Parts: sequence; structure tokens; C-alpha cells
Amino acid sequence: MSQYPKSPLMGRMMSQPLLISSLIKHADRYYGNIEVVSRRVEGDIHRYTYSDCHKRSKQLANALNKLGVKMGDRVATLAWNGYRHLEAYYAVSGSGAVLHTINPRLHPEQIAYIANHAEDLYLFFDLNFLPVVEAVAPLCKTIKGFVMLCDRDRMPAETKIPNLMCYEDLIADCSDEYEWPLFDENSASSLCYTSGTTGNPKGALYSHRSTMLHSYASALPDALNVSARDVVLPVVPMFHVNAWGLPYSVMLTGAKLVFPGPALDGKSIYELFEQEGVTFSAGVPTVWLSLLSHVSQNNLKFSTFKRTVIGGSACPPAMMKTFRHEYGVDVVHAWGMTEMSPLGTSCTLTGKHVHLSEDAKQSILEKQGRAIFGVDLKIVDDDGHELPWDGKTYGNLLVRGPWVIEAYFKNEGGDVLEHGWFPTGDVAVIDEEGYMQITDRSKDVIKSGGEWIGSIDLENIAVAHPAVLQAACIGVFHPKWDERPLLVVVKKPGMDVTKDDLLKFYDGKIAKWWTPDDVVFADSLPLGATGKILKNKIRETYRDYKLPTA
Amino acid sequence: MSQYPKSPLMGRMMSQPLLISSLIKHADRYYGNIEVVSRRVEGDIHRYTYSDCHKRSKQLANALNKLGVKMGDRVATLAWNGYRHLEAYYAVSGSGAVLHTINPRLHPEQIAYIANHAEDLYLFFDLNFLPVVEAVAPLCKTIKGFVMLCDRDRMPAETKIPNLMCYEDLIADCSDEYEWPLFDENSASSLCYTSGTTGNPKGALYSHRSTMLHSYASALPDALNVSARDVVLPVVPMFHVNAWGLPYSVMLTGAKLVFPGPALDGKSIYELFEQEGVTFSAGVPTVWLSLLSHVSQNNLKFSTFKRTVIGGSACPPAMMKTFRHEYGVDVVHAWGMTEMSPLGTSCTLTGKHVHLSEDAKQSILEKQGRAIFGVDLKIVDDDGHELPWDGKTYGNLLVRGPWVIEAYFKNEGGDVLEHGWFPTGDVAVIDEEGYMQITDRSKDVIKSGGEWIGSIDLENIAVAHPAVLQAACIGVFHPKWDERPLLVVVKKPGMDVTKDDLLKFYDGKIAKWWTPDDVVFADSLPLGATGKILKNKIRETYRDYKLPTA
Repeated sequence: MSQYPKSPLMGRMMSQPLLISSLIKHADRYYGNIEVVSRRVEGDIHRYTYSDCHKRSKQLANALNKLGVKMGDRVATLAWNGYRHLEAYYAVSGSGAVLHTINPRLHPEQIAYIANHAEDLYLFFDLNFLPVVEAVAPLCKTIKGFVMLCDRDRMPAETKIPNLMCYEDLIADCSDEYEWPLFDENSASSLCYTSGTTGNPKGALYSHRSTMLHSYASALPDALNVSARDVVLPVVPMFHVNAWGLPYSVMLTGAKLVFPGPALDGKSIYELFEQEGVTFSAGVPTVWLSLLSHVSQNNLKFSTFKRTVIGGSACPPAMMKTFRHEYGVDVVHAWGMTEMSPLGTSCTLTGKHVHLSEDAKQSILEKQGRAIFGVDLKIVDDDGHELPWDGKTYGNLLVRGPWVIEAYFKNEGGDVLEHGWFPTGDVAVIDEEGYMQITDRSKDVIKSGGEWIGSIDLENIAVAHPAVLQAACIGVFHPKWDERPLLVVVKKPGMDVTKDDLLKFYDGKIAKWWTPDDVVFADSLPLGATGKILKNKIRETYRDYKLPTA
Repeated sequence: MSQYPKSPLMGRMMSQPLLISSLIKHADRYYGNIEVVSRRVEGDIHRYTYSDCHKRSKQLANALNKLGVKMGDRVATLAWNGYRHLEAYYAVSGSGAVLHTINPRLHPEQIAYIANHAEDLYLFFDLNFLPVVEAVAPLCKTIKGFVMLCDRDRMPAETKIPNLMCYEDLIADCSDEYEWPLFDENSASSLCYTSGTTGNPKGALYSHRSTMLHSYASALPDALNVSARDVVLPVVPMFHVNAWGLPYSVMLTGAKLVFPGPALDGKSIYELFEQEGVTFSAGVPTVWLSLLSHVSQNNLKFSTFKRTVIGGSACPPAMMKTFRHEYGVDVVHAWGMTEMSPLGTSCTLTGKHVHLSEDAKQSILEKQGRAIFGVDLKIVDDDGHELPWDGKTYGNLLVRGPWVIEAYFKNEGGDVLEHGWFPTGDVAVIDEEGYMQITDRSKDVIKSGGEWIGSIDLENIAVAHPAVLQAACIGVFHPKWDERPLLVVVKKPGMDVTKDDLLKFYDGKIAKWWTPDDVVFADSLPLGATGKILKNKIRETYRDYKLPTA
């Protein structure tokens, strides 16, 4: 912050850096008896308290010190959501090293690329990733040791992995006396690579300051709204932008924490919700599809589940309505990016809206929402000129704020900012009240005769049809209009619908000229490592598709 | 923050100072149409929006610039809660100057002392304080001009005040184009003097950083819990620790804001609650006495009022129960100090408590609560040794955190910290779950035969008696025990109770030896400028009181 001029009169307040270690110290002191419950990779349920977690995190910090890990060194994890991963979150960042969470769904070569790029010194991994690590280990040039997150009796009898250690052995040897160091709050705390669909993955390098400000902001009533009465189950993985900051905000607020481990199917999640009294969860839409289908097929209800934040990709309005009206679960639509720690906006009503009709409320709640304080948004045209907030004008969405990156790790990709703003690669409209709605990814927008058609709107309508499971809309070549929309649909098992039915379904829901020119049915859609539909793959598949209108 | 070591690897996040101006920019952009409603000193109701407020704040910032106000200069206010005061909050701090809010209930000589000590350059004041300002003006050596917060037609025809300006004229001449400057976040933003009962008043000099971190923390679900659906009426004055930060947190969250002006009687407050749909309010217990008595006497109900935060002094349990059980209003007990911006703790339940009986919940909610994340607490004995958190051991309460002072303005009072912790002057117990309960001010605690008796507990029991309006308990001389408790009571109008009835009322509620030795009845109790009962005055009155037990 030193580049900003100082006033001749400075405040006389205590100087304390914003550090991640202060979260676990706070949780230990004020919520020491609150539980952390984990469904483990081993299959059983593990439970302990925030005080236990603090104790073991301090043991791990001492272990890292013994291993020679120093401030700024990168320590990687390849793990599901669980208590040992949580200990790594606090021990690595808290001791001044940098936690590098790797997405295990990536291809081994990508994992190795990322580990080498990050120059990771150690890799902590869940036991079910042993085969992945065996494949990756020979490719990783900087990793000095591998730590398997398990007890001694789960360790493999023999392995090709050099310097393989057992997590429980490693920390058992270490004292739980540890003084968390104080250092500059702009020091790096954690590293997360974007799952870029083009080019090499690029790292977002968070600081303690950015993480702590994000933690305060994300717990606010209009963001994740986490309180000491909540029981929080992060379905969003800890390797995916720090599980949207939930491992931090639960310690800030004293909420009970429930980890699902690798069991992300509807049945397992539902059981954990009911057994542990989960009140709040967060994840991408694809996960909720599986949960809702389990609940509906078995005529179940949620006893304690009250609120979910859905992000990662737009939540289909039909899913939002099902949650709200059939199960009484409030859905908060949120939007963010790896480059934004990740939270940028959340969609909640203001006092002006509480007396609106249900339909009017719903149409607001389908938007991505307003900026969470700290973040600012704007939309610009291709020349960088700011566009009006009228709810109609499409523009490239730019963001800034203290938890937005200024550059990627190692300056990968060079200067990414546009006059101090980060270009999100999304296309959005913003209305008069500041509600932002993503209409498309810049590269997914369909350009028909010079006008922009938002593919997401078309997909949302399609998935509202009772026979449609998933839908993707892409622009394909048209001799007159340059591009016209093609709808690719996966039907629900045992359900049927025709092309004509689907196209008729658009009547009155959208401008006539936005209606797709054609529909094709597919068995499945290609998904990326974070569960998002890979539009570029679909565009490749249908590159030479000839529209009947062409 | 520069005294802390940097990591070899710094984060790559945007560098943005935490500045108060970002709040009003945010409110303008994302909550521009949300209202600010003020009952004015003039008597009428004024309403405008956050966008209007931003526009006029920028005009005022330009006006301050014209007046020659520079970064770090102090600008004072002597004003009730209202929209012009709000504009001063943002224009003064936002432009880099320091807002010095003065308590108009102080004696004119104290006001002059404070203004001279702060070296205020200008004083902005409400029109009803004209006589006070006329008395004070000749005593103020540094003030170059006085600005009356009113229209031209309210200005006095003649006055003894030198360089008296009209607020509306002042800003009418100025453009609403203004670029809020960026500067170091540790720059001073505002100044508030403690109403010390002994010695000269001392100033707490807040920074932009401390104010912004406090704003995030105070809006959290377990603190003030402010959302965009709230309508907030701060009864706590803006000259009293920045109205507990509410003028900031409403802009952070988009809540509608309602200002009561000087009309703090029960009837006026109630009318504003009902007219404007107030959901949330905050103030000291004495204000709520008047509101509850108006509501009860007229058989009224609250239509929208749901939640209040009570602080400043301990909330009598009887008041908490009345609010909760008769009116369905949740009371959150909070504790803080001018030296803490002011919020330190708030009392809410955790998930462990939600299934407890009403009585068990009530006994938790009567405590001052757990530290809001950012603040840390400890209790120590007179030698500075930390005492256990067992819910029984009394100790001197110490605090630290990024919104706690490290010293007073101009180092008044010298080194105030004890090994980095601020001594609050309160005596407290902390239980196993981290809930803190103030048992007394260090100087109010009654020392009977080497043991400490908490005066607050004794007062709480007294005011739970149906005939008691107010009560104060002080230690008076006893030849055997050094001190024994004397209860001073003000009866409710038209109600009667005897000494023996009152002493019997303590039976079974408290250890026998804590029961006061005597009761005296008074017509009223002396109140300080912030509405607190002045125990030192009462102690003076009864200095030579002879107890019947002596």
C-alpha cells in the first residue's frame, strides 16, 4: 500500500496485519467446541473440534518447518474436502508458505505442468489419488517429498514414489506448541490455477490480505450469510478457488463445518445433510442436479437445509424454482472467478423488492446480482468505452477490488489489466439498480447479423422443458447471418421430446429471431474438470454442421 | 504495516487502499435509489437517496477544498443524526480531512477544550445549537469559520459568531464533480473524544483502515447483521463513536437509513419506526426505556421492528425479556468502547445452543458475548497474569485488534497499552465457550472483605422489580468489610416499594453475602452526556453514608 500518499495526520490504531492464522486462533478461542465433521476417503465419518484442528495444524506447521519449508515456498495438495486438507490450509499459509491446491480431475500431464510451474516442494494427497501421484511423480522436478493423508496402516507396502511419507506419522512426531508468525499481509498465501480451456493454466496468487478481506465480505448477510448457528457443507471442492473461501469464513463466524469427502452423489450428500443438520451449502449447478434427483425420486424432504449458494456457472431458473418452491430452500445466485478469490457478486433482494410478486422476485433472483462491497463492476464495448446500466446493453464485464488479481503468477500472460480493471471474459448487462446478469462468455456469444445473442438465455429456456436434462447452445456458420444458434440437448432418461416441440417451447419467451435454427440430440455433453460444460468441445464437434436454414 | 517482514513471494492481488469514500461510491452505484430519511431539527421529514447523498457529499468536498481544508485538517460537527451530518461524514473523511464529532451535551467549556485540543478549523452545527456555538465561539482559538446546517432563510439576522456561513449556500456554489482522492489507508479519518469521568477528555483517532475493517465486521450476521432488506434507525448519536459505525455499514450493505434528529422521546421514535418500516435499531438502554414505556402505555405493537442492538451500558435482563417476549424483538447485547471504534463483542447463540430452554438461552444472551472476528480479549489479574476462562474468575479486561487504539490523539495519557493490549477499565468473566460478561467497571466494583462484588448484577436484579425504574449500586465504607453495597433506587411513577421488599427480592437470586446492606430512594440519578448513570457522582453524594450494618 506504500505507493499511496500518507496524510500529515495518521490514525492511532493498532497495527495488525490481516493474516490467515488469526482465523484459526479465533476459532480455537471462541468456537473451540464447535465440530468439524468429515466423510473420509476411507469411507467412515471423522469428527473433532476447531480446538483439535488448531492443535493438529500447529503440529503440521512444526512438521513443515522440519521438512525445510520456508516462507514463500509452495506446498501442493491433491485432496478432497476433509479435515486433513483443512489442517494443510492453515498450517501452510499460516506458517508463511503458499498452499497450492491442485484439481485432481486434471490430466496427469496437466498436474505435472502445474506442479513444475509452481515449483512445488511437497505434495500432500488423499490415499485414493495414489495411482495419480505414481503417474505424476516422475514428471515433477521440484517436489522433494510426497505426503499421503492417512494413518500408517493405509500406507502402501511398496511404491514407486520417492520419499513417500505418512501424514499421521509426520505430525505425530511434532509438538503442538507453535507461535504463528507475524508478517506483511500482502505476502502470498495460496495459489490456484485456472482451468483455462485454451493455453496453459495460469496461477492466481492470493495474499493474506486479499483472503482476509474476502473472508469478511463473503460472510456478510447479502453474500454467503454465514453465522454461528449455521452448519456448512461445502460441496464446492477445496481445490476449486479455496471452496469459495468457506474454510475461512466458517472459522470467522463459528459455523459447524461438514466435509463430504469424495462422495458427491445425491444420496451421500443428502445423508450427510440430514445426519449433521446442514443448514447451508454451496456448489455448482451440476452437483445439485444429482441431489435434487435423489430427493425427488425417493420422496424426501430436507429437515434443516435452508440456503444454498449456487455459482460456477449460471443456475438454471428451473432448479432455483424447484429448490425454493418444492423444498423451501433459498437459492442465492453468486458469480465470481478464480481470479477473484472467487466472489464478485451475489443476488439478493433489497427492501424495495420485498413486496413484489413471486414472479417479479424470481426474475431478479435469476441475475448474478450486485457487487459485494469491495468489488466494483463495469461493462465496456470492444473499444473500452463504458456502457450504460440499462438492463439491455451487452458489454464486456470488467472488475476490480482488493481480492482481484493484478497479474498471474510469474506474470504468465503478461499485462492482463485494462486501465486497472480485470477483464473477466464474460459478457453481461447491468440494470439501473446495479444488478448484473451474465449473458455469455465473450467467446460463446452468438453473433447473428451484427447483433449479439446470449447462449445462456437459450439454454435456460431449454432446461426448463420437462424432458430436457442438459442443453448447450452454440453459434454455427450461416451464409447470411454469419452465425445462428444451434441447440444441443440431452434428454432426461425415459423422456422424449421432438425438435419442433422444443422450438415451439421458445414461443413468447424470447425475441423471435433469437430462437435456435435447429436442435440436435446428444447422449451427453463434454464436462471440464470443474463440472462446467465445455462449449469449445461442442463447437468443435459441430464445426461443419449445416443448418436447415442455411 | 511496513514493520512486518515481507515474504520472498508476495501475492499478486490488486493494491487498493481501504478508504471511507469507497462506501459512498458503492452505495451510489449499487443502491442509488435506496432512501435516507431524516426527521430534521426543523421538525419536518426530509427524504432523498444514496445517489443524492453522494452528489451533495461531493459538493461539500469541493466546498471544503475552497475553504482551504487540507489532508489531515480537523473539521468538527455539533449535530444530531441527519442527512447533512451524513454528508459531512463522507465529505470530510473522504477528502482526506478528519471528521471530529463533538457531543453537544457536553458543557460549553468542555466543548471548547476539545475543539482547541483537536485544533479544529471549522465547525458545522445544527441550528438548535446556535446558542451553544455563540457561547463557545469566543473560546475556540483555531476555528476559522462556523457553518450552520440549514437553508438561508433559517440563518439568524444577526449573530456574535465570526464568519458564520450557511450550509446550503456553501454547497450550492460548488460542483458535484469530484474525484475522491486515493491515499494511505492508515491516514486519520475521524476523531472522537471519550467522555472521561476523570481527567481531560482524550481523543480516539480512527484511520480509514480501522473504520473499514470495523464496517465489514460490524455488518456480519453475528454482529449488527445488516442487509439490503433492512431499514436502519440509529438512535445512538452520530457524535457517539460514529453511531457505532452504522453510517458506514448501511452504505456497505444497502440498507435504508432513517435518522431521528433530536426527537429521541418514545413517541417520536415509535412514529418513525412505523412510518418508515424500521427493522433494526441500536442504542443505549435508557433510550429504550422511554420507547417501551410509550408503547406499553398506549397498547401499541411494532409492525416491522425485528431486532435491536443494545450497548453503551449493560442491558437490564428485564428489558431484554420485554422486547423478546412481549414484542417479538430480538435483542443483541453488544459491548465496546470509544477506543474500539466501538464494537468489541456481540452476544448471539451458536448452533450448540439452539435447542436449549428459553431460560438457558436468556442467561447466555444476558452476557456481553463473544469477540467479533478481528478483536481478541483476555482477562488478567492486577499483576497482568492471564486468568482462566471458567465463567467465574473476575479479571481486568484487555483487548486488541485492528480497530482498537494504540494511543490517544497527541499521545494524551502517554503509553496506554499493556504489552500490546488495551486495558478497558472493565472487570469481566469469560466462560469456557468464550462468552464475556462485564461484571463491573474496575472503579465501580465493590470490594467487600477482599472479595469482589459486581455492582451490575445487583442493579440488574433491582430493575427487574416491577416498581423500580432505575437503580445504582455503590460500595460505601464499612468498618469491618472495608466496603459494603448500598442500593440507590428511583421508583416508577405512581409505584411504591419498601426497603425490606427490595432486599427480600434478592433472596435466591444471588449469594447471600452479595445482598446490599441498605437501600435509599432518590428522585433521579445523575446521567452523563451519553446517557450513562454517573456512579462517581452517586458515590460523592453518599460518601459519608452510614450503613445500618456498620
